[in-house]
Amino acid sequence: MVPLKDDERIDFADKDETIPIIQSSSVFSFSLDAILLANFTYVPIKQGKILDLGTGNGIIPLLLTRRTAAKITGVEIQACLVDMAQRSIQMNQFNEQINIIHEDLTKLHNRLSHSHFDVITCNPPYFVTPSPTEHNKNDYLTIARHEVMCTLEDVVKACKRYVKPRGKISIVHRPERLVDLLTLFRQYRIEPKRLQFIYPKVGKDANMLLIEGVRDGKPGLKILPPLYIYQKDGTYTEEAREIIYG
Amino acid sequence: MVPLKDDERIDFADKDETIPIIQSSSVFSFSLDAILLANFTYVPIKQGKILDLGTGNGIIPLLLTRRTAAKITGVEIQACLVDMAQRSIQMNQFNEQINIIHEDLTKLHNRLSHSHFDVITCNPPYFVTPSPTEHNKNDYLTIARHEVMCTLEDVVKACKRYVKPRGKISIVHRPERLVDLLTLFRQYRIEPKRLQFIYPKVGKDANMLLIEGVRDGKPGLKILPPLYIYQKDGTYTEEAREIIYG
Repeated sequence: MVPLKDDERIDFADKDETIPIIQSSSVFSFSLDAILLANFTYVPIKQGKILDLGTGNGIIPLLLTRRTAAKITGVEIQACLVDMAQRSIQMNQFNEQINIIHEDLTKLHNRLSHSHFDVITCNPPYFVTPSPTEHNKNDYLTIARHEVMCTLEDVVKACKRYVKPRGKISIVHRPERLVDLLTLFRQYRIEPKRLQFIYPKVGKDANMLLIEGVRDGKPGLKILPPLYIYQKDGTYTEEAREIIYG
Repeated sequence: MVPLKDDERIDFADKDETIPIIQSSSVFSFSLDAILLANFTYVPIKQGKILDLGTGNGIIPLLLTRRTAAKITGVEIQACLVDMAQRSIQMNQFNEQINIIHEDLTKLHNRLSHSHFDVITCNPPYFVTPSPTEHNKNDYLTIARHEVMCTLEDVVKACKRYVKPRGKISIVHRPERLVDLLTLFRQYRIEPKRLQFIYPKVGKDANMLLIEGVRDGKPGLKILPPLYIYQKDGTYTEEAREIIYG
């Protein structure tokens, strides 16, 4: 048995309940965003190398194991999350497939080879504002949600540096940052190829976006069909249910 | 009676059939794109100045008269379309409200004052490729559809030059050009504020987009609910019917 600390609990990453994951409401619990990103990302099935930047408690690597035999590296700056991720990996016996690195994603130069990964995923901090009043009181969550330790440009720069030419980068973010994202993608020669907007329900503005870019790719962006999360009665739509419980 | 030429015919710009417009299948007929753009654009109700770049047969100015008493200027490079637009305006007795200028939008310096308009609309040529094999055989249509006479950058530059600070720019385009559009908007300090994707039907990728930017505006992009044009049975959706026939 893997030991749990403080207020940690074991949830399941997938709704088949085959992948237990250590979570903690005070430190970090994965969100729908991570599930949607894992589902959106094209992965090589049999081999290859995947990098997840800002992996948190390892939710994205854990979910991707259901769809790929590729080696997955997760990078996380917060020691307590690295520890949670590593214990979840041990619990699932994914030690051969997933490797977690405790590092700042802007300081990976000596830890990872350039142009090395087939796919890079990232669920970055969403909020620019480093104004202390707007910070979550919980420092762990502040770092996960606000651009305190890294900016969006740091993320895109790291993606560009570690992905192979023609490799894929997929990111989940908020619609308010679309222009920044696309501008940075172009600046770092990551061509946006697929873009999907997530709407909480019919008639509402989008509240999330999923984007895939290809390093040194040719222009040609597709806007995928929208994904609605909830029906009018507040229950999941069939599509969302399929992704979350599928 | 306004005289018709060659294969010209009179259609109605609006489905209340209150605004007749001269069209020609060999020269120019307005498309759904123009109707959607006119509908999407916020206009001042009582007064102000609106500019429509690449006005074609004047469809957008004509449609906007239903919602605004502002003065509307249309700019069109093709003499035959200027002539069609002017006869439609005469036919509708909108001579006081709409003025059509026969000019290249890159050469308006001596015709229009800078920072003069509250709102600028544009349904620009969609296709980059000036490769002659990809051109429509009809030269009129080639100029309307391909970036032969002006590039997207020319359009955005002209928008920036003639709109007032805090004035609005609204453009219809194809999703493939979203990255170009957003990059150019940022380059010319037009901040994207509203973005809507048009889907031919449920489950398909978007095939059109509507975007509104504000000159020198603050960042904060909203992704509006998607608009579907057709139902599964090929008839218009209720929303599309409302816009087209409403």
